[in-house]
Amino acid sequence: MEGPPGPITAIDGRRYVYFAGTGYLGLAGHPAVVEAGREALQRYGVHTATSRSGFGNNPLTLLVERRAADFFGSEEAFYFSSGYAANHVLLQARGRGADLVLADEASHYCLQEAARLLGKPVETFRHRSAEDLEARLKKRLRRGQFPLVLSDGVFSVSGRLAPVPEYLRVLQNWAPSALHLDDAHGFGVLGEQGRGVWEHFGFWDGRVNSPSPDAAVARFVCGTLAKALGGFGGIVPGSCAFVREVRAASHYYDGASAPSSADAGVSAAALEIVRQQPELRRQLRANIRQLRQGLRALGLEVDDGPAANFSVEIGRASHMRQIHDGLKAAGFLVPYVAAYSGLGPEGVLRFAVCALHTPAMIEDLLSALKPMI
Amino acid sequence: MEGPPGPITAIDGRRYVYFAGTGYLGLAGHPAVVEAGREALQRYGVHTATSRSGFGNNPLTLLVERRAADFFGSEEAFYFSSGYAANHVLLQARGRGADLVLADEASHYCLQEAARLLGKPVETFRHRSAEDLEARLKKRLRRGQFPLVLSDGVFSVSGRLAPVPEYLRVLQNWAPSALHLDDAHGFGVLGEQGRGVWEHFGFWDGRVNSPSPDAAVARFVCGTLAKALGGFGGIVPGSCAFVREVRAASHYYDGASAPSSADAGVSAAALEIVRQQPELRRQLRANIRQLRQGLRALGLEVDDGPAANFSVEIGRASHMRQIHDGLKAAGFLVPYVAAYSGLGPEGVLRFAVCALHTPAMIEDLLSALKPMI
Repeated sequence: MEGPPGPITAIDGRRYVYFAGTGYLGLAGHPAVVEAGREALQRYGVHTATSRSGFGNNPLTLLVERRAADFFGSEEAFYFSSGYAANHVLLQARGRGADLVLADEASHYCLQEAARLLGKPVETFRHRSAEDLEARLKKRLRRGQFPLVLSDGVFSVSGRLAPVPEYLRVLQNWAPSALHLDDAHGFGVLGEQGRGVWEHFGFWDGRVNSPSPDAAVARFVCGTLAKALGGFGGIVPGSCAFVREVRAASHYYDGASAPSSADAGVSAAALEIVRQQPELRRQLRANIRQLRQGLRALGLEVDDGPAANFSVEIGRASHMRQIHDGLKAAGFLVPYVAAYSGLGPEGVLRFAVCALHTPAMIEDLLSALKPMI
Repeated sequence: MEGPPGPITAIDGRRYVYFAGTGYLGLAGHPAVVEAGREALQRYGVHTATSRSGFGNNPLTLLVERRAADFFGSEEAFYFSSGYAANHVLLQARGRGADLVLADEASHYCLQEAARLLGKPVETFRHRSAEDLEARLKKRLRRGQFPLVLSDGVFSVSGRLAPVPEYLRVLQNWAPSALHLDDAHGFGVLGEQGRGVWEHFGFWDGRVNSPSPDAAVARFVCGTLAKALGGFGGIVPGSCAFVREVRAASHYYDGASAPSSADAGVSAAALEIVRQQPELRRQLRANIRQLRQGLRALGLEVDDGPAANFSVEIGRASHMRQIHDGLKAAGFLVPYVAAYSGLGPEGVLRFAVCALHTPAMIEDLLSALKPMI
């Protein structure tokens, strides 16, 4: 890639109308975001070269946490250098009390790895199946034991959502219990305020990442700033007490480099833009609707889900490779994904739309695709 | 921290002569490094917003890998966003074949976590004890089984080195076997070329991270660019075949955000400076010697080790806190570390010296410290 990702992206010497990646709000090349990163470098250098618990708290890192808290409507937030580590960071605080961990079989690698580090029995349940989850709970959990359920909020390739209300309904019968979601692809996209999958389903309130001891189902979420939110690094918002606990539990506060100055600078600037410009989310929603409906009008199996990423399977792998190549020749990039957590043997074409695509770009993609399927 | 870390560092509104952190070559505020990061942001935006296996290979990421390979004298290198993940990235490729994993009990958290993710029996052996390692091998390993030994190359607080020759001698008797070192604090500091702990002990040759199938003891190393090497992110140098294998094994290539443009930009620039200016390493060595010898002249137990970080225990915790506070009041920052992997109950004062400290700064620190101990 030879420039920032956006609706038009330069790759291998050519510019494509780009329907790939995860920059759903199109902020990776935003001038104010870029400038904030440049200023951060000038003022603070590469990074603090120490951990947060050392002298690694520079004003930008703290600003990211303040702005993330504002965006999520939480009291506090913990910002660290890696989104991949976000599940690990949260679960070290709240997963170790679990007696049984149940993860969606198609959960992202980073979530499954974080689960295995808990040192607890980990089982998987059928992808997005509350029924299978319930069956496994009945089979495996003894009275008084604490189950922890893990899932992506929005799956990274399919764009399907975890059936959160159904999971909560099941877990009510096993209280106390917990549902933890990795919302990497939901943050900034789903929900009126962009707070992600919990908000989308109407459960974003003071009780996410702020569990009261008597909650039947504790609700947890973590994610990344590096997709829709336009920055770089992992984030866990929550109540002051909860975030304090999360900082103390893993070693991302006391035994890892604090985020780089540039990453913190861009993250702080991008969070402010996301919060102050809800029209970006509205534009993204209109684009999601247009592309999903347009693909359905071509006879493809695409629903009206709220995610900016989704995939379709069109015949065999070889056919999808042809479509990918044909679209590429026509100037459109839609990746063919052969293998990924949760995919079938033929793979899929993965579409990602961003707030900065114009209706004409989407229309052109559909026109180019039509004769190929 | 209100500016780049360096020999003088601004913290909480005051400038200190700073003997902390991990920026051993003093590059975090180097104008050329900072400028490279700024240019990277301008040209490539925040990041590619996708994985390396997607379209996430921008020219800067590839340049970091090229320059890291040049620096280490290896064929290739794998660069990823998190130094904390480096052990995980390497061990997913080469740890899963082990029958028994033995880790130094004081290994860094990230190494111990990476070990636990292998799904193999993990035991610890006494800190830096080849004798205890041998005893455990005799007790636990059956004929024909493959042992993998893990350790920090340079321990992050004490600055002590893994006794690499002794470990190799022990492991010769258990061939085939492997010794893996996390060289976060050795890269850029130890060895004539700055290639770290393997070079320091005379074992840096074509066989580190390039094991031949008939090697008695396979040698592995990983580390970070975020300490002496002046950049940000994790690095695994090695032969082409080995690096290809490492990229394929964990999900940092296909399921994690590629490094941010700024982090890649600063890393590429800093690597070039480190390679082209060996005088930085020479200056660092002179400073290490001066500080270690000066502390010993004050009656403290400090050896002539080659690491730029080291620690001393001076009486009880309360006394060390007093020294820390006293030095701070006098304008010197030397952190008191109360708890960390491998520390005793009283904690230690941790010293870190960088290439840009002047002899006078070190002399002044020693003068300020003298009446306090």
